Amino acid sequence: MTQTRTASTFAPPVMEARRWLEGVEHPNGRPLINVSQAAPVDPPPAPLREAMAQMVMEDAEAHLYGPVLGLPALRAEVARQWTASYGGLVGPEQVAITSGCNQAFAAAIATLCAEADEVIIPVPYYFNHRMWLDMSGVRTVALETGDGMVPSAERAAECITERTRAIALVSPNNPCGVEYPEETLQAFLNLAREKGIALIVDETYRDFDSRSAPPHALFADPDWDDTLIQLYSFSKAYRLTGHRVGAVVASEARLAEIEKFLDTVAICPNQLGQRAALWGMQNLGGWLAGERAEILDRRAAIEEQFPRLAAKGWELLGCGAYFAYVRHPFSMSSAELAPRLVKEAGILLLPGTIFMPDDVRGGESQLRIAFANIDRAGIVALFDRLAALTL
Amino acid sequence: MTQTRTASTFAPPVMEARRWLEGVEHPNGRPLINVSQAAPVDPPPAPLREAMAQMVMEDAEAHLYGPVLGLPALRAEVARQWTASYGGLVGPEQVAITSGCNQAFAAAIATLCAEADEVIIPVPYYFNHRMWLDMSGVRTVALETGDGMVPSAERAAECITERTRAIALVSPNNPCGVEYPEETLQAFLNLAREKGIALIVDETYRDFDSRSAPPHALFADPDWDDTLIQLYSFSKAYRLTGHRVGAVVASEARLAEIEKFLDTVAICPNQLGQRAALWGMQNLGGWLAGERAEILDRRAAIEEQFPRLAAKGWELLGCGAYFAYVRHPFSMSSAELAPRLVKEAGILLLPGTIFMPDDVRGGESQLRIAFANIDRAGIVALFDRLAALTL
Repeated sequence: MTQTRTASTFAPPVMEARRWLEGVEHPNGRPLINVSQAAPVDPPPAPLREAMAQMVMEDAEAHLYGPVLGLPALRAEVARQWTASYGGLVGPEQVAITSGCNQAFAAAIATLCAEADEVIIPVPYYFNHRMWLDMSGVRTVALETGDGMVPSAERAAECITERTRAIALVSPNNPCGVEYPEETLQAFLNLAREKGIALIVDETYRDFDSRSAPPHALFADPDWDDTLIQLYSFSKAYRLTGHRVGAVVASEARLAEIEKFLDTVAICPNQLGQRAALWGMQNLGGWLAGERAEILDRRAAIEEQFPRLAAKGWELLGCGAYFAYVRHPFSMSSAELAPRLVKEAGILLLPGTIFMPDDVRGGESQLRIAFANIDRAGIVALFDRLAALTL
Repeated sequence: MTQTRTASTFAPPVMEARRWLEGVEHPNGRPLINVSQAAPVDPPPAPLREAMAQMVMEDAEAHLYGPVLGLPALRAEVARQWTASYGGLVGPEQVAITSGCNQAFAAAIATLCAEADEVIIPVPYYFNHRMWLDMSGVRTVALETGDGMVPSAERAAECITERTRAIALVSPNNPCGVEYPEETLQAFLNLAREKGIALIVDETYRDFDSRSAPPHALFADPDWDDTLIQLYSFSKAYRLTGHRVGAVVASEARLAEIEKFLDTVAICPNQLGQRAALWGMQNLGGWLAGERAEILDRRAAIEEQFPRLAAKGWELLGCGAYFAYVRHPFSMSSAELAPRLVKEAGILLLPGTIFMPDDVRGGESQLRIAFANIDRAGIVALFDRLAALTL
């Protein structure tokens, strides 16, 4: 009897990490610092909540089924803003709304792969991508990134076989925080097109990119949709994590395939969340700019504080968007260290081991810090605790 | 190159049917009668909308990520009400919340099957079940039901092979409307247990069952969770289709596997929808009883009106919950008839052909009428139009 789909993958790391908290008491004066998940801890701003409350009361459609591929007005708004911000060519028919960005990835893979196909992803990877590939019967081909944490298209080219169907990138990266250079993304697009495979670029954290210019010009290529599949999430920008709204930008023909998958696993994205995302896109541009500035300030605080840890043997491997990815100086594996940090330092974070396959080395000495939820004072407290560690 | 997951299945029938409407004008005095989808057309009752608006404004958690397996209070409420209404033994740890009932089915299958496994489903089947099996690489084994539209466990036993992992039933049935007798469900449970496979029972329409006694005693068996997986939807009972909330009731060990799937395709069910479902369960019992009475009255109207069609050669194959399943008297296939009904009678419904594989006969002469959305006057109008058809 072969393994079932779910038996072929591991348990959700974030839920697993939450279990480390069970039975642990945090002393007064040392409350838990939770840097395990990339998630806002505050609700959407009041004007958006007010708009949503009004929709709940007055808009019957906000409670009923809608089109599988999403609210037409939201698809159109994404197309309009993408066309403007990327200097690109994106039409509403090339945008579909999903129940979160994880679902966008799952849907894209379902249109690309069959059993025993292969997808190349840089390591460290976003663990939910790996889990979906496992459950789809797709072999994950790990592309090592080296110390810069930026993958190379030349090295990726060496990994391509006749079963390769796609390369999937995340930029700004989860878990590493690094913003992939425009040239890197372009080189991957060129490679994918040349090999007749898809390039998936997950831009969940695009709203927090430190660069003022567009992160890439891929959408300016009139034929972008023969190769590119872009993923996005409304969760972070508008604090809508609990409403589950994401997007996939791809060719109209691919979206017709994606429609089959979304109809079957979701029927439609939730209607209120979609309307909230649309309201956010139309009304919260200024507010979002402030949110981005705040995240960039927290990133600066990480970089300012880091020398205290560097002096003790720590290394900052990547930093940006919501994440710092670090190398710790201890002789134990991060898989052992992370649960101990809960007990001994009141810090919840994820070990590097969960961002790579067992046969790829490096994760043992790495940790991901999802710093977006802690302010400057919280970052100082976090570094105080890490600098004081004796293990 | 083998077929991708999505290429292995067909386009969503409901979206397909909506496209038949394009360019069709409905004359004054003959507005479209849409009986294609099992979906409320009205929003939730005002007290529930008011409660939701208050949650949007005051409950920060309603906007943020929550546990993958759902809101603990909702899981507990389902367990409590199930234990009471089925005379059963269901604990909160045996309940998970999903983003709609389709997702519950997908998650269950992911825990049961690998590539090339088999699942037995009665025909006519719910098309999204078939689509998910296709996309999972699972072979659908069609169990013919005969004229009573109730499947037989004895016939199912003959279909079981060493690759069979589950039998999946829907009761009250979609598309046939029939309520499976308690003995039928018990016989299927006994068969599944004896063969070491799972029995999935989708009870999306349980709140509209015409029987006053519990529809089955499966949950009263202290070992039910070694075999039974029950699926449920909050969409119909509380008019929450647009919020995407369903449930799966199964063993705690299976839910740990389901957690992997849900984490990867959804992260969590949407938080506001879950709170709305909980509020509905706790406060709308009386209102729901009225909704059920109304649906049962519409069902009675179908049965009262049907002799007019029977006189013209139509046959009522099944009727209950949200659906009437009928045999039409025309010499053309329902696949051709259904789009013509839009143009010639202003009626949108789904043809029987989409509820069975191409190699199973019968669907050509069958139609599904999702009557829940039309009142007595609408039902009379529908029958007027069908009785007047000359093709």
